[in-house]
Amino acid sequence: MQDSASPDNWLDLVRWNSDGLVPAIAQDAETGEILMMAWMNRESLKLTAEEGQAVYWSRSRGKLWRKGETSGHQQVVRDLRLDCDEDVILLKVEQKGGIACHTGRRSCFYRALEDGQWVPVEPVLKNPDSIYGNQ
Amino acid sequence: MQDSASPDNWLDLVRWNSDGLVPAIAQDAETGEILMMAWMNRESLKLTAEEGQAVYWSRSRGKLWRKGETSGHQQVVRDLRLDCDEDVILLKVEQKGGIACHTGRRSCFYRALEDGQWVPVEPVLKNPDSIYGNQ
Repeated sequence: MQDSASPDNWLDLVRWNSDGLVPAIAQDAETGEILMMAWMNRESLKLTAEEGQAVYWSRSRGKLWRKGETSGHQQVVRDLRLDCDEDVILLKVEQKGGIACHTGRRSCFYRALEDGQWVPVEPVLKNPDSIYGNQ
Repeated sequence: MQDSASPDNWLDLVRWNSDGLVPAIAQDAETGEILMMAWMNRESLKLTAEEGQAVYWSRSRGKLWRKGETSGHQQVVRDLRLDCDEDVILLKVEQKGGIACHTGRRSCFYRALEDGQWVPVEPVLKNPDSIYGNQ
């Protein structure tokens, strides 16, 4: 039995998928722009709430991913939301450096469908090589 | 070999998961509010583009789900976006009836984390029973 006074009850309410993950959408708290979607496991969501900065689970690297740990583009969390099915998290954030995407763009959703093609419609604000210290 | 002139090339670029699905985020095109997240398979994404209205894949019912088919709360698509990893779709929509959530709220993300609890912070705009014809 779970102690009803447990401080982690809010984590128990989340419906993790078979891999123990949920999608987490990051939205600019000021402009409403959707910056990215990544994944969280229980530990990363707990750390996100405790530290006040977005911590995801990197599926490709199989480890915790403190957003901005290499780029400096941290996401300071202003609001944490849960959806009606309890299986998606929404983070309203302040995006440090104004860039969420590893391509150097503000948002990862920079391609729009136009005439049957995905067309980049958002500018690259910073060269990714300079963001990630490759030059 | 795929014909490079195929009108469905844009669907081939999407990285469907092992179930043939991708997350699809619906955002109010005017206000920027995030309304919901659901899932799409190839057919539903194609229909969404063709019909100009959101068509999802219902994982629980195992069938196509034309958003609003029961409630009348269709989502007219203004913009379709793809993220940098090609595995998440963003729809900017006009939400018919102003209600996306089956609870009768505008957005599915109506619970905020406050003092270690998920607290409803958005009003119910319409009784779900009247939306879904149960009364």
